[in-house]
Order: sequence, then structure tokens, then C-alpha cells
Amino acid sequence: MRDGAINFEAKLVRFSEHWSPRVIAEMNDYQFKLAKFQGEFVWHSHAETDEVFIVLSGAMALEFRDGTVPLAAGEMYVVPKGVEHRPVAPQECCVLLVEPRGVVNTGDAGGAYTARNDVWV
Amino acid sequence: MRDGAINFEAKLVRFSEHWSPRVIAEMNDYQFKLAKFQGEFVWHSHAETDEVFIVLSGAMALEFRDGTVPLAAGEMYVVPKGVEHRPVAPQECCVLLVEPRGVVNTGDAGGAYTARNDVWV
Repeated sequence: MRDGAINFEAKLVRFSEHWSPRVIAEMNDYQFKLAKFQGEFVWHSHAETDEVFIVLSGAMALEFRDGTVPLAAGEMYVVPKGVEHRPVAPQECCVLLVEPRGVVNTGDAGGAYTARNDVWV
Repeated sequence: MRDGAINFEAKLVRFSEHWSPRVIAEMNDYQFKLAKFQGEFVWHSHAETDEVFIVLSGAMALEFRDGTVPLAAGEMYVVPKGVEHRPVAPQECCVLLVEPRGVVNTGDAGGAYTARNDVWV
């Protein structure tokens, strides 16, 4: 029997922690992760990979050293590899992340916001 | 000046052809493509890669030789590499595809539905 579709809402209700991505699917060596953002994350970068943010509900911004990109539901952004960024969200924002398997949420920065990797929901 | 967010709706209104994916972003060597499905596509497979379907609006189904997976807005599915499938959509359905750069929409099947590759919108 083949698996059914992956429903974002059905997955999102299964966790509440902010800044703690949950894997929902893999495509080749890439992972699709759901995350809930609220507040200000840490400045960080990923030296080896671009990173995709797709906003499913709510609104957020990606702060860069040279400006800020607002993102709302139905919008996406590709953060180029090596570029320092900081996600921020005044209210809770649900996001679909796409990145290679093994990417740590805080990149080069580490610290208290570093989430356990490869946690599925 | 940094690019702004990529808005799916703003991109979708810029083309109307069915089964004709348009690239909207690249992440490493992967592409994000918008497509409008309506009717029945051809049976095909992609020998070298998984393929991700994320439904943005409307509803569709992925037919497999061993069953059918219905997909509605807010749902995604990963078609494993090498697995024969046929997308179908009774009414127009808008989809975000994720796959490596260079993947042809009809895979191994070819034929009239084969779209020009790497067309951006």
C-alpha cells in the first residue's frame, strides 16, 4: 500500500516548539522540514548550501546585513550559501524549509537555539 | 539591492499553459517550478531522481500502477525515482515542483506533452 499525501496542517498540529524544525519528507539527499517561528532567531550562515524558506501561514522576515526581506504566506525565498541571515517573526509563522539532509538550523553560530537534527514528525 | 520574496500568485498569473512548468527559483542544483495541471498527463518515470509535488491551489491525483494518491492544496508528495506515475487534475490545479535542474517533465516517455526545459517566469 502506497503512502498518502503529506498534509502540512496535520503535521503542524503535532508540535508547538518554536525554532525546532521537523522533517516531513526526503527527496534524494534533501529534506523538507516544517518549522514554527516566533521572535528573533540568531544570526548565522550555512557555508555549504543554499536554504529555502516557504511561508505556509503568518508572516516573517529574513534579515540580512544589507537589508530585510519580508515574507508572507504564499511566498518563498532562497538564502544563498554563506550569506548571514536572521529569521524573525513578530507572531507565529509556519514555514516549510528545504535543504540538504544534515543541515543544522543555527549553521555556523551554534548556541541555545540549536535544534536536534533529523527529527521527524 | 537584495531581491524580494518570490510570490507564487504573482508568478502564476504570468502564464496559462497547462503541463508547462516555469522555473521560479534555484537552490544549489535544484529548481523550484510552478505548473498548472488540467486533464490527464502521460505515464512516465524519472530514472535518476525523486520528484516533489506541492499543491498550492485546487486538487489533483498522482496515479501509480498500484494505486492513486489524491493531493489537495496544502499537501505534498514525493514520487520516488524510477516509479511510473501519471498526474491528473479534473479542474485546474496549481503545483510547485521541486527537482534537480535538467529534469524533463515527461521523463522517459517523451511525446507531445514534453515541455521546453528551464523556462523561467
